[in-house]
Amino acid sequence: MAPAAEPDPRTVIGVDLGGTKISVAQVEADGRRRGERSRRLHSNAGPDAVVEEILATIDLVRGNSTAPIEAVGVGAAAQVDEASGLVHHAPNLGWREYPLGAKLAEALGVPVAVLNDARAATIAEWRFGAGQRANDLLVVFVGTGVGGSVVAGGRLLEGASGAFGEVGHSILFAGGRKCHCPGRGCLEAYVGGWAIAQRAREAVAADPSGGAPLLVEADRVGDGLGAASVGRAAMLGVPLALRLVNETGDWLGQGVAGLVNAFNPARVVLGGGVIEGWPELVGDVDGAIRRHCQPPAANAVTVHPVALGHDAVLIGAATVARERTFNRR
Amino acid sequence: MAPAAEPDPRTVIGVDLGGTKISVAQVEADGRRRGERSRRLHSNAGPDAVVEEILATIDLVRGNSTAPIEAVGVGAAAQVDEASGLVHHAPNLGWREYPLGAKLAEALGVPVAVLNDARAATIAEWRFGAGQRANDLLVVFVGTGVGGSVVAGGRLLEGASGAFGEVGHSILFAGGRKCHCPGRGCLEAYVGGWAIAQRAREAVAADPSGGAPLLVEADRVGDGLGAASVGRAAMLGVPLALRLVNETGDWLGQGVAGLVNAFNPARVVLGGGVIEGWPELVGDVDGAIRRHCQPPAANAVTVHPVALGHDAVLIGAATVARERTFNRR
Repeated sequence: MAPAAEPDPRTVIGVDLGGTKISVAQVEADGRRRGERSRRLHSNAGPDAVVEEILATIDLVRGNSTAPIEAVGVGAAAQVDEASGLVHHAPNLGWREYPLGAKLAEALGVPVAVLNDARAATIAEWRFGAGQRANDLLVVFVGTGVGGSVVAGGRLLEGASGAFGEVGHSILFAGGRKCHCPGRGCLEAYVGGWAIAQRAREAVAADPSGGAPLLVEADRVGDGLGAASVGRAAMLGVPLALRLVNETGDWLGQGVAGLVNAFNPARVVLGGGVIEGWPELVGDVDGAIRRHCQPPAANAVTVHPVALGHDAVLIGAATVARERTFNRR
Repeated sequence: MAPAAEPDPRTVIGVDLGGTKISVAQVEADGRRRGERSRRLHSNAGPDAVVEEILATIDLVRGNSTAPIEAVGVGAAAQVDEASGLVHHAPNLGWREYPLGAKLAEALGVPVAVLNDARAATIAEWRFGAGQRANDLLVVFVGTGVGGSVVAGGRLLEGASGAFGEVGHSILFAGGRKCHCPGRGCLEAYVGGWAIAQRAREAVAADPSGGAPLLVEADRVGDGLGAASVGRAAMLGVPLALRLVNETGDWLGQGVAGLVNAFNPARVVLGGGVIEGWPELVGDVDGAIRRHCQPPAANAVTVHPVALGHDAVLIGAATVARERTFNRR
């Protein structure tokens, strides 16, 4: 760890704009957060109302501070044009082609960076978290969907249209389960949260008596069939749930092993809600890499859980905003 | 195209060291070859004898020229340490840990660059061939094995241990056919030349009468069951062979589509013996990308066959040797 530094006097704000919630904090140059606040979003709030929510939450975070804000970074669960701050498509918010960066910049009078949230979180893990000092890094987030980003030769890769690292849509079973993307058989269609829920429903339908204890567990907490209830039932020793967890570990492991062959990272960092709920998946992936990968790739890599958790999105977004703003001057 | 330039007076030699053959030519700064010569290698020649063959072939290429050689580049069908010129493992030559670069440099008294052949060919296609001016490029060679390389943001990626772009060992069917690598279900285990031969043998064993015309065709030319005989039988309309070709196109297409999602290239370039023999695979891959890929990735990419064919290896190796030598001075 670097020695604790004086707080950077230049105030930079990070915003995590999720599908149902915003989180805002002041973020120091060393990645530390100050004064984080969150609020739930109304499900039918339009984008202009969300901008108002973001501005109000920034005010709460600032409290009595009189130091001017110098830059804002937003990590959004969306396809984003980073150069212009335009949100192309935010499926969970129902937005299309909304100029989020321009709206916030106009209201605040400071530079605003807008990034895809997985990309923002990758930058945070790379700078301050489990990917620190790795020149070649593969970050995979297994949440409702499966996303990722790749650092190669010390650079976060972007691709020809800003979509580099859509590792959730590499193939696991050609021609297999229909994905939410146009393809079939993608990694996400087997191990993403929505796919785990789908597989759980199918397993229960195929074996109602074996599935009953899983339904009971889902009903007890009231969260429905999904990665969380399957994980709890597996902890209770329900065989059908254990099978679903083991199968997921096997598939995620083989999928990531194939990606390690392709990308040759020095470090793999795994995060997202499914990994959080089933932390043993990290070991499954490590084991699969040792068994399946080519030796030059396997010997070069270690596997880790994320270090920054949910805060990574706003930390990464603020870090990009800080660097763009102060490197430009 | 750039206007034709005066030949660069600095003589650089490119060598393609395959498993059964060497090819040598003088290579100009614009990628043009002069005086190419090839010779077959004796199957049991040790590495020192092969070095003598390379030196003798360089003499043939030089003819009466008195201009001194200034650099040599070798593209080898091998795992190579590019920094030292050490050949770690050349399976088809039976070499392990042979200091090829040092041996040639000692004999010739000039700098020698040694590269993996797929990497050398990628560099040639990127500079002078079908990948020209692409900042984000995925090159896939489907020969006996399946190899590839990736250019991202204008740089050829290397990975943590020089193995970036082992796209043949990304997953096509998790837990599927045993690969030549430690894994199962790799793309190569379905569409590499050795796998096509294996699938053809299995198809003939499962359906002897349907397979008979394929055996006849293989026997007629004497090349055995493999991509070449299957391709010819498919051209003759043999249903079992057509099925093998169509299946291969479908699988290669889906595998490359997954890679396009992951790497987001502006151009995909396909080469190698299987593509050469079955050029319709290029269209199959293009179609699969349109059907299976995410729109941001699909809309950004075009698909092309290689432009330089077999010469790409020696052109790429010479180009790297030239740039290393003259940029260093």
